[in-house]
Amino acid sequence: MTITNLTTTIDPNAIGEQIYSLMKELFPICRSITGNGVRETLKIIGKHIPLEIHEVPSGTEVFDWTIPKEWNIRDAYVKDSKGARVIDFKQSNLHVVSYSVPVNKKMAREELLSHIFTIPEEPELIPFRNSFYKEDWGFCIEHKRLCDLNDHEYDVCIDSTLEDGFMTFGEFFLQGRTDDEIVIFTHTCHPSLCNDNLTGISVATFLAEWVRASSRHYSYRFLFCPTTIGSITWLALNEPQLYKVKSGLILTGLGDSGGFTYKKSRKGDSMIDRTVAQVLCALGKPFEIYEFSPFGYDERQFCSPGFNLPFGCLMRTPNGKYPEYHSSGDGLGFISQKNLAESLKTCINIIESLENNRCYFNTNPKGEPQLGRRGLFRAAGRKHQPPEEQFAILWVLNLSDGFHSILDIVERSGLKLELVKRAADILITCGLLQESPDNDTSKI
Amino acid sequence: MTITNLTTTIDPNAIGEQIYSLMKELFPICRSITGNGVRETLKIIGKHIPLEIHEVPSGTEVFDWTIPKEWNIRDAYVKDSKGARVIDFKQSNLHVVSYSVPVNKKMAREELLSHIFTIPEEPELIPFRNSFYKEDWGFCIEHKRLCDLNDHEYDVCIDSTLEDGFMTFGEFFLQGRTDDEIVIFTHTCHPSLCNDNLTGISVATFLAEWVRASSRHYSYRFLFCPTTIGSITWLALNEPQLYKVKSGLILTGLGDSGGFTYKKSRKGDSMIDRTVAQVLCALGKPFEIYEFSPFGYDERQFCSPGFNLPFGCLMRTPNGKYPEYHSSGDGLGFISQKNLAESLKTCINIIESLENNRCYFNTNPKGEPQLGRRGLFRAAGRKHQPPEEQFAILWVLNLSDGFHSILDIVERSGLKLELVKRAADILITCGLLQESPDNDTSKI
Amino acid sequence: MTITNLTTTIDPNAIGEQIYSLMKELFPICRSITGNGVRETLKIIGKHIPLEIHEVPSGTEVFDWTIPKEWNIRDAYVKDSKGARVIDFKQSNLHVVSYSVPVNKKMAREELLSHIFTIPEEPELIPFRNSFYKEDWGFCIEHKRLCDLNDHEYDVCIDSTLEDGFMTFGEFFLQGRTDDEIVIFTHTCHPSLCNDNLTGISVATFLAEWVRASSRHYSYRFLFCPTTIGSITWLALNEPQLYKVKSGLILTGLGDSGGFTYKKSRKGDSMIDRTVAQVLCALGKPFEIYEFSPFGYDERQFCSPGFNLPFGCLMRTPNGKYPEYHSSGDGLGFISQKNLAESLKTCINIIESLENNRCYFNTNPKGEPQLGRRGLFRAAGRKHQPPEEQFAILWVLNLSDGFHSILDIVERSGLKLELVKRAADILITCGLLQESPDNDTSKI
Repeated sequence: MTITNLTTTIDPNAIGEQIYSLMKELFPICRSITGNGVRETLKIIGKHIPLEIHEVPSGTEVFDWTIPKEWNIRDAYVKDSKGARVIDFKQSNLHVVSYSVPVNKKMAREELLSHIFTIPEEPELIPFRNSFYKEDWGFCIEHKRLCDLNDHEYDVCIDSTLEDGFMTFGEFFLQGRTDDEIVIFTHTCHPSLCNDNLTGISVATFLAEWVRASSRHYSYRFLFCPTTIGSITWLALNEPQLYKVKSGLILTGLGDSGGFTYKKSRKGDSMIDRTVAQVLCALGKPFEIYEFSPFGYDERQFCSPGFNLPFGCLMRTPNGKYPEYHSSGDGLGFISQKNLAESLKTCINIIESLENNRCYFNTNPKGEPQLGRRGLFRAAGRKHQPPEEQFAILWVLNLSDGFHSILDIVERSGLKLELVKRAADILITCGLLQESPDNDTSKI
Repeated sequence: MTITNLTTTIDPNAIGEQIYSLMKELFPICRSITGNGVRETLKIIGKHIPLEIHEVPSGTEVFDWTIPKEWNIRDAYVKDSKGARVIDFKQSNLHVVSYSVPVNKKMAREELLSHIFTIPEEPELIPFRNSFYKEDWGFCIEHKRLCDLNDHEYDVCIDSTLEDGFMTFGEFFLQGRTDDEIVIFTHTCHPSLCNDNLTGISVATFLAEWVRASSRHYSYRFLFCPTTIGSITWLALNEPQLYKVKSGLILTGLGDSGGFTYKKSRKGDSMIDRTVAQVLCALGKPFEIYEFSPFGYDERQFCSPGFNLPFGCLMRTPNGKYPEYHSSGDGLGFISQKNLAESLKTCINIIESLENNRCYFNTNPKGEPQLGRRGLFRAAGRKHQPPEEQFAILWVLNLSDGFHSILDIVERSGLKLELVKRAADILITCGLLQESPDNDTSKI
Repeated sequence: MTITNLTTTIDPNAIGEQIYSLMKELFPICRSITGNGVRETLKIIGKHIPLEIHEVPSGTEVFDWTIPKEWNIRDAYVKDSKGARVIDFKQSNLHVVSYSVPVNKKMAREELLSHIFTIPEEPELIPFRNSFYKEDWGFCIEHKRLCDLNDHEYDVCIDSTLEDGFMTFGEFFLQGRTDDEIVIFTHTCHPSLCNDNLTGISVATFLAEWVRASSRHYSYRFLFCPTTIGSITWLALNEPQLYKVKSGLILTGLGDSGGFTYKKSRKGDSMIDRTVAQVLCALGKPFEIYEFSPFGYDERQFCSPGFNLPFGCLMRTPNGKYPEYHSSGDGLGFISQKNLAESLKTCINIIESLENNRCYFNTNPKGEPQLGRRGLFRAAGRKHQPPEEQFAILWVLNLSDGFHSILDIVERSGLKLELVKRAADILITCGLLQESPDNDTSKI
């Protein structure tokens, strides 16, 4: 329970700046689902938290999937007839379709155009495209520049390699007082895109730092993996240990200025679902709760029917619901330090709430205990104790029968979690409340 | 599953005309709960489908009831002092109260009037009246004609017989791949009334023809019986076999221009209830779902507490909710071919939905299967596969754990049943989905 | 079932006057949680119903509490420098803080003022204050009179005793056909306050008289106790018998002109909760149902987690929601005979509904029984039987499978309880309905 109130020690301005700085450092790197960009990214995260790096060889079978070849890229360009680089990977790594196979030849305008992708409705933005599981190549450019490609022939070069190698992911585990685990997952496969997903990576990194400094009931596992193949691989490697996972949260899209969105797990009423709903509600700002659907981020894998783990996804504006999504519009200017700090604080609130969600039993369950002689009753004329605190004490006593958790009490009483938690702490001090002996968090 | 898409082979204009023609043929016949009118009706239906005719002797005890005497009528009239037929059975069989005992005598105006029924609020319409279980007699006339009965004495004749005989009903059974049964019930006891219930009789007949031509998972039983005594008798005769009945539907009032109304079974959330709700919803037109109540049609008997079978009732405007109900206003002009065709199509949709409502399991339940290498994933740049189909595939994979049926997936995803069904078919073809071995339809 | 319709024998004007008269008799008495005021109150109630008086010695331990010393008071006053009684217990017993320890000395204005309580926002009213569990003393006056206390010194006297003695409460038990018990609780500890709680005391007394004159399925226990310590003591003394208690109702605040308020038990859907909701709904006037909360009246104790008994609380305007609450404004003018009579009638309706809430089974559950030959069916042309009665008969037959109670039928059909009850009685007479053999009221 010592985890409480650590949020108050965080300076929002300072922490927002720190998260943003980490993002700036990661932004130029050309990440994909494999390759050196991922390694470099994990190395930088490793300066904050001691990441364990996993390298899974190409060709390894993971359930229905196979670890693909490793992709790396040094350079790529399209030169016009005068030798000028009209498309240049060095200007933006979004210009090259991720996982493009090597190309080096002159080709007619028509052939080139069939490999070029744009967003007609957003002519100023370079789209983000990939071809992870089908050997192909392509370039992405601003739609408004399409009309400039007038030469008959172009010199096209993609100096990439697609060869047997490894898929790389990072893991940071923190043992708690119990083996029950909370998993935080964030994807590392996107190149220079900020909201999706340098914000998830950076917020998860600072969240991990914070959890590391806290006393913990739960164990915590932070996963930095490529999307889909990464979560599937981790699930395949850790299948016998999955019974320990009590809650999971996907972090992504945490820097834009939209309100929070939480997408529920397939179960829909698990501890993480109820906890996040309470935390967002207590923020006092507009937010949205989405029902589970089997598309979106890696919750798809954790919530597949063979696992059905209670994983939700926390974001601000959901994927696909803002025009900058998966394009060069999602740059360092699209997100803000303030939003990042608020996102981190919200993640911390969620973890605090999970940590505090214990079941207690009232040691004097028959009638109310006499609060007056313990100094817990607002007597005649004394008004300095706020009534809400009195209410919280009575609610905790009334519902603490060993079966109602703090979260149950919050939901039923309508009181704030911190008030209920404080009441529980006071009652524990008085000996009127004890932790339930069979406090199995999977049932809470 | 071969039942799908047969509806598309039906020409709505042609089928509406055929149903209407059958009704025209049946319209003049004077039906009641027993007698030759019923036999003649079943004989005509028998030209479309091979009906098994049951004759249950008068006096047979069926639960709390006894099969009544058989009623037949040749002629009936009221002659005025000049010998003119002022009320004439030959003009409309509604003129005679059904089950009227024989009468043949002169009587004073006052005595006659005490046996005459009208609808004061609908002065142009002849009411339909019966006295099935109490020996009595009477005439029904237009209220506006009441004032014409000015003579002091009338010659009253009802040339009927009420004698030991039989109650007649028809049954048509179609064996499916399983013994699990769907029962379609429609009542045959009303004289020249169209919506209630020549529409039920005729739509059921054409529905039976259609089911007969289809490959079937379920077995189907079509019942053409008098109301109340008919359903009670069938229940009494078939009690040991009732465990096979998985769903039942009463058909009536299917020709008027109102939107569809479905009255739920006593259980309220059985497969037939949820299926009809989905089908009506997918029609995209206004409809109403009524909670079960123990009045209305023969669902009262099937849903009595000793059976509690999942029988709902499909109609358009409910009984008693239109002024023409149970009167001469419910004639051939009250209903239309278009409405009949739409009603048949809706019944077919319901049966298709029941047939398609299977439980499957995802053969690759751990993480998503790799759809890309099976050509099921919308890859970069390809837009020809509609997103909804992609969604349907992912929903079917996610929920197919052997416990969620197609109907469950439709309800949770909000996608159309045909889309979900098509996704399931595609996944079966790919080997990614298999029918659940314990596919007990009573649990679906 | 003979309890039905006794309400019709009550003359509302007469009974309202009688309840009011009892209140007038009790009003002047200075009650507290112990002492002679309580004894005198119970003696007067005892003229109506044969109360058993319990005397529990000071110092007795009851769960977490201890019976306090007994408090009695003869006189109290504050005299100014001229010897005039500026505050006088004989003018209103509210002037003295209940449980004030003896005081007899001259004191400076400042010291006196620190023991004086007022209601600044209601300057005309004397507040009601107590210090039951902390030895202290004080006076309560109208806020507007505070400015008159200008002398430098006052002669302060509280001629009270706080000594070992007893806590007194009254109990009236009525054996029914079963040992299953309904408990009616009302608190007796408030001095000259009418709505809270002479109305509860008086209505409970007349309700007890009425139940005593009725044939009873349940046994009834009426408790007249001080709040908190009284209910806790009764629970402590009767713990082994609590399994018999099937429903409980706290009565208080039943004389003001507000609509009824029912506060649900902690269980929230117990028989008493559902019954009171039905009764208030049938009244056809505005009312409110509150969810349970662990503050308010003695339901707090009965609903504590160690007991979790199904006790709700019936009142009109809830405690604290009217300015006269716990002040001299809550006098004989604040309540009316009409409201008292309506409150009693509502309590009687609740008890009638509890008594009538039996489970039956339809003796002819397969199909409908033939109502016609039993004279229960509205045949052609006969309109004298109202359709609602017909509906009630069909609903009772349809749902009476031994598991649905009368209350279930009322809730599902939307029909009034008396209609459903009458239908059940008719069907019992016909032999079509029998009481369920395992009619355990704890399950209803």
